[in-house]
Amino acid sequence: MEAVNDYISQNKERFLNELMELLKVPSVSADPKFAADVNKTAELVADNLRKAGAENIEICKTAGYPIVYGDKIIDNSLPTILVYGHYDVQPADPIELWTNPAFEPIIKKTEIHPEGAIFARGACDDKGQMFMHVKAFEAMNKNNSLPCNVKFMIEGEEEVGSENLGVFVKNNHERLKADVILVSDTGMLANDVPSITTGLRGLSYVEVEVTGPNRDLHSGLYGGCVANPINSLAKMIASLHDANNHITIPGFYDKVIDLTDEERAEMAKAPFSKEAYCKALNINDVLGEEGYSTMERGSIRPTLDVNGIWGGYTGDGAKTVIASKAYAKISMRLVPDQDPAEITKLFVDHFESIAPAGTTVKVTPHHGGEPAVTPIDSIGYQAASLAYEKTFNKKPIPVRSGGSIPIVAMFEKELGLKTVLMGFGLDSDAIHSPNEHYGVFNYFKGIETIPYFYKFYTELSQS
Amino acid sequence: MEAVNDYISQNKERFLNELMELLKVPSVSADPKFAADVNKTAELVADNLRKAGAENIEICKTAGYPIVYGDKIIDNSLPTILVYGHYDVQPADPIELWTNPAFEPIIKKTEIHPEGAIFARGACDDKGQMFMHVKAFEAMNKNNSLPCNVKFMIEGEEEVGSENLGVFVKNNHERLKADVILVSDTGMLANDVPSITTGLRGLSYVEVEVTGPNRDLHSGLYGGCVANPINSLAKMIASLHDANNHITIPGFYDKVIDLTDEERAEMAKAPFSKEAYCKALNINDVLGEEGYSTMERGSIRPTLDVNGIWGGYTGDGAKTVIASKAYAKISMRLVPDQDPAEITKLFVDHFESIAPAGTTVKVTPHHGGEPAVTPIDSIGYQAASLAYEKTFNKKPIPVRSGGSIPIVAMFEKELGLKTVLMGFGLDSDAIHSPNEHYGVFNYFKGIETIPYFYKFYTELSQS
Repeated sequence: MEAVNDYISQNKERFLNELMELLKVPSVSADPKFAADVNKTAELVADNLRKAGAENIEICKTAGYPIVYGDKIIDNSLPTILVYGHYDVQPADPIELWTNPAFEPIIKKTEIHPEGAIFARGACDDKGQMFMHVKAFEAMNKNNSLPCNVKFMIEGEEEVGSENLGVFVKNNHERLKADVILVSDTGMLANDVPSITTGLRGLSYVEVEVTGPNRDLHSGLYGGCVANPINSLAKMIASLHDANNHITIPGFYDKVIDLTDEERAEMAKAPFSKEAYCKALNINDVLGEEGYSTMERGSIRPTLDVNGIWGGYTGDGAKTVIASKAYAKISMRLVPDQDPAEITKLFVDHFESIAPAGTTVKVTPHHGGEPAVTPIDSIGYQAASLAYEKTFNKKPIPVRSGGSIPIVAMFEKELGLKTVLMGFGLDSDAIHSPNEHYGVFNYFKGIETIPYFYKFYTELSQS
Repeated sequence: MEAVNDYISQNKERFLNELMELLKVPSVSADPKFAADVNKTAELVADNLRKAGAENIEICKTAGYPIVYGDKIIDNSLPTILVYGHYDVQPADPIELWTNPAFEPIIKKTEIHPEGAIFARGACDDKGQMFMHVKAFEAMNKNNSLPCNVKFMIEGEEEVGSENLGVFVKNNHERLKADVILVSDTGMLANDVPSITTGLRGLSYVEVEVTGPNRDLHSGLYGGCVANPINSLAKMIASLHDANNHITIPGFYDKVIDLTDEERAEMAKAPFSKEAYCKALNINDVLGEEGYSTMERGSIRPTLDVNGIWGGYTGDGAKTVIASKAYAKISMRLVPDQDPAEITKLFVDHFESIAPAGTTVKVTPHHGGEPAVTPIDSIGYQAASLAYEKTFNKKPIPVRSGGSIPIVAMFEKELGLKTVLMGFGLDSDAIHSPNEHYGVFNYFKGIETIPYFYKFYTELSQS
């Protein structure tokens, strides 16, 4: 491993520059106007894999954006690690809040990242974290230190629901045959508190449209006489939570698995300061479901949030209009054993049933994803734990995360494989927000830790 | 009057073309990008007044858009009518819903307007109705049939609150000296049911901003843990009405003058078909304050409507974000004796008090306006009633309107003058909406009726 570590040290500048190049391409999968850039990014990923020494590289076409595949099989009797990542990114909106343009990466020091952090959309989620695997592989491969086989599957539609990945996996069981899946698309508690994600929430995401009158109306002539779609939508949204912030959709909690008191006590041991949390967000208090801690609300409990709302006149000044339509994007984070399709149906039925007189409601489901929990007694988890311990000098804490990586459940179903979530991001990295960044420390810590995972996973598999 | 009527008949085509020219200029006062067009429209109005024979024409500068003044004093012992109108228009948004561009006027036949209607922003509100006065004046003046003095005051900021008009009126008491104010900026019940507006609602208009966390957050990591500004805003808006659709702002109804049972019975005589009303708007039912009819809800009762709402991700696809901020534009229509400034303060205090934990609220008042009721026993109302009866062969019905023309109360306060609201628009004209239009029948009926108002007003004044 000394040669690998030396190689990483000697190539730090280049590793950083190559990531910066990748971050310059705005691979926003949600917005069709970036289609050429998303495709270009797939090619860049393939080029980088090729230069790192991967073989059988293919930019696999799908009904949407392509999946980049590459592998290096050194010995069929050795274990095979399948690395998953994604090269697409979230939209950069609201762009006016970026202090530096989202696709012009720049390194700046911050309080949390005294060594500097790379500011760019995708810096952490997931170009930066995905690229650590390419570079760790390069370091092992160029020094003939690869202890096992490795396969890469890097997709371009994670931020829009990974629909075509499911088809690809279904059609490529043989090519994707492996022993474990390794993903870096999550975070850890702090740079001095390493942790590994063992649970993920699922997702149901819908768009709702409330229609009132067939045209925009003058609020002086019609105000008070007809249902105003915006007021109606507000009323409907408000009714989705009760006074204790429980979700009111009938049947919503039916399949939620409650944690035992022991499990909750174990969770409560993770460091958490409400004061620091509120200060970082500049809020005077937290708000959430009665009877649960903030950590629990964000991980083991399902939630419902409006992610966007619009309707009526939103320009400068005053327009006295009653809009014909109002819209919202609403997402629900799910926990085991809630089923996204079932929850989506419960939502649609309930939302349609609460439409006030004089309105009609249309609900369009977007992508969903199943919740997942990964076992901490598996070889994969143990190998990851040893790897972090090696590079951080601290045993990582297992944590349940509030985010969703729906493909984890899909991988298990389709390939029968468990996923290990070796994330190196921080909550403060502002993923999905303006000024997303990724610590230079975290980037290189990832590149250093990943080879140890290969080593320990191979050793544990063979013992 | 025969010469006047002949002149109108002979110049119909020109009168229509000149209006079309005026409608081509996008004089949107709410949006600074149309500033040059608003100013150009003021010049066009001045040119038209000059050609019609008005004197002392001046494009009077204000802190905002100018006010066009012109007059014709034939004899100081005769009564003076002060005509008010506005040359600015509402924004055309949402522009994609116009079947023909908003500023490319076109005449099309409709079910209600078999003789055709002019489709363009401002066709009815208020370029079309204001221009009737210019043309009626021209017809009287060119035929030496003017029975009294006339003054014009045409402003360019009605759609944004007429703030500078107040200053202008205050500084021009002598120049604006008159006996009555005549305004066509309202509607009538139907082309075969002429009516005159005797009451107007006031207005309080505010913009609210709800701030939660200091940046956009990932809804997976923070969902359920912090107040989501959009959910919070929805909850706050929803709470502004109770289950009976009464407004919940403390003190809101304190100064509302309730109508007597007789007055309500009189109002109920106006023709109204709920079925036709719902059909025209394509809604399955009306919705409003418990205990009042639709006509009452839209005229004698105060209301609260959200006119616009926005926040979070509103683009294509799905973005799992918790927005840092959410916004809404909210207006309240007021009735005598509610005071706009007082109601705005009640709103601000209440809205700030209901902000959930973890949010802060900022309320910015836009323009307001006082409600007004005009007496039907005045010479002005009587003259208008006789004029309509002459040209429609039907006595017009006095009605209270739901709209607001805040300047009516200001005129009374500043100049001590009552306003007569001779409106020729229809509710179906879609003012403030896409595809605003104004019946060709209504345009010419207005031009024909106005000279009779001059005649009867002068006669009644002298008798």
